[in-house]
Amino acid sequence: MGKALSIIKVGGKIVEEEATLSRFLDDFAAVAGPKILVHGGGRSATRVAEALGMESRMVNGRRVTDAGMLKVVTMVYGGLVNKNIVAGLQNRGILSLGLTGADLGLIRSRKRPAAEVDYGFVGDVESVNAPALSSLLEGGVVPVLAPLTFGGPAGLLNTNADTIAGEAAKALAAAWDVSLYYCFEKGGVLRDEADEGSVIPVLSRRDFEAYKAEGVIQGGMIPKLENAFEAVSSGVKRVVITSASAFSKGGGTLVSG
Amino acid sequence: MGKALSIIKVGGKIVEEEATLSRFLDDFAAVAGPKILVHGGGRSATRVAEALGMESRMVNGRRVTDAGMLKVVTMVYGGLVNKNIVAGLQNRGILSLGLTGADLGLIRSRKRPAAEVDYGFVGDVESVNAPALSSLLEGGVVPVLAPLTFGGPAGLLNTNADTIAGEAAKALAAAWDVSLYYCFEKGGVLRDEADEGSVIPVLSRRDFEAYKAEGVIQGGMIPKLENAFEAVSSGVKRVVITSASAFSKGGGTLVSG
Repeated sequence: MGKALSIIKVGGKIVEEEATLSRFLDDFAAVAGPKILVHGGGRSATRVAEALGMESRMVNGRRVTDAGMLKVVTMVYGGLVNKNIVAGLQNRGILSLGLTGADLGLIRSRKRPAAEVDYGFVGDVESVNAPALSSLLEGGVVPVLAPLTFGGPAGLLNTNADTIAGEAAKALAAAWDVSLYYCFEKGGVLRDEADEGSVIPVLSRRDFEAYKAEGVIQGGMIPKLENAFEAVSSGVKRVVITSASAFSKGGGTLVSG
Repeated sequence: MGKALSIIKVGGKIVEEEATLSRFLDDFAAVAGPKILVHGGGRSATRVAEALGMESRMVNGRRVTDAGMLKVVTMVYGGLVNKNIVAGLQNRGILSLGLTGADLGLIRSRKRPAAEVDYGFVGDVESVNAPALSSLLEGGVVPVLAPLTFGGPAGLLNTNADTIAGEAAKALAAAWDVSLYYCFEKGGVLRDEADEGSVIPVLSRRDFEAYKAEGVIQGGMIPKLENAFEAVSSGVKRVVITSASAFSKGGGTLVSG
């Protein structure tokens, strides 16, 4: 039994617009106790790539990352999005520190081998340096994690932000009582995509499989929930899928074991 | 009298090409004891800006930074250049951490008021959080500083890397015996620009003024040396202007008081 730790993952759409980011940072700043922010930034990456004349290719919702695209995501995730969040938090009195997996050797990954799809410079997480993160947290620092991992000789690698949040939560679950929040645009996992009021309050693995088979849960929500269930079964205390505006107020979908 | 600390500033030209960067990182990794790396990245910023259809405007060798250019330098300095250096150092067994002035509230600045020239989102350093840097160094961490400072409500601001190195050296001089190395393409301050062998071994303030009056020292070397002399008079033990390939081997120009 450790102390409480909140890990909050927030998607691109929210961090990439000044108004929604500002509101989110107000809410995040108000969360009591040790906390970690994990952010995406895919839409900005797509926009910057486009402005540079590069096409974004997505397969199963994941970005194919060639050498040029790796530069773009390093700039956008590690620089633009991460540092703007850090500056925004400092202005709210939060001692924050922007990090990629390379910084302090925090998140090691392995370049995904080319199979049916060659995702390019994409990393599958091998290990999270939990002691380094714990030591920052105990020093009152709020880590802000960009979705970039460290592939050793392969250098920086692109890694999905949901995965980073899940892996960090799992690695820290031994020392902390971790609550993991996946924040996005909707109020939670919906029974009916067209009805914002149809949030499923508690989702078990069995229900998830049934909803998946029925096609009620589909698309990008499936890997997000896979991450969530894996976190729960690895000792993460509480996993919630919720909206960026409501994560600090309860509600959303609680993912049960 | 503190422990020895090396602060090494390396210019854009060196960190922006893979071969020269790799050689430099080998040399930097071999430096014994606590150390800090401060990097530029102007050429990459110019290149990325150009690819985005933005023109780089320089006045007195300094970049005019409008809102669009601030995004570019945040991406290039805080992301691309900084994180590639961090990854390169991790691969050399160096526990490095990439930082802007916003991270941990390290370097506070004030947006430069528009005078004859409006430099835009450019920050003049107000304070360096020396205790935070010292605590990282004592923990065995090698800080890698990007030339971006934190202007409070003004957010991230663009700040010259030479200035950052000088200000960090001055702030740390109370607790450490600081050696500050300005590394660039030449072997040191030259008596004759056309003769690489004409390195001035020791440069006093009086000689500097004389060389400046004669036009022997000119252009970007003047603000670099102003930073250097200011550092010396603020208690920095040793300031050397030297080449990236020779900084660890002695040589270059020693700036005396």
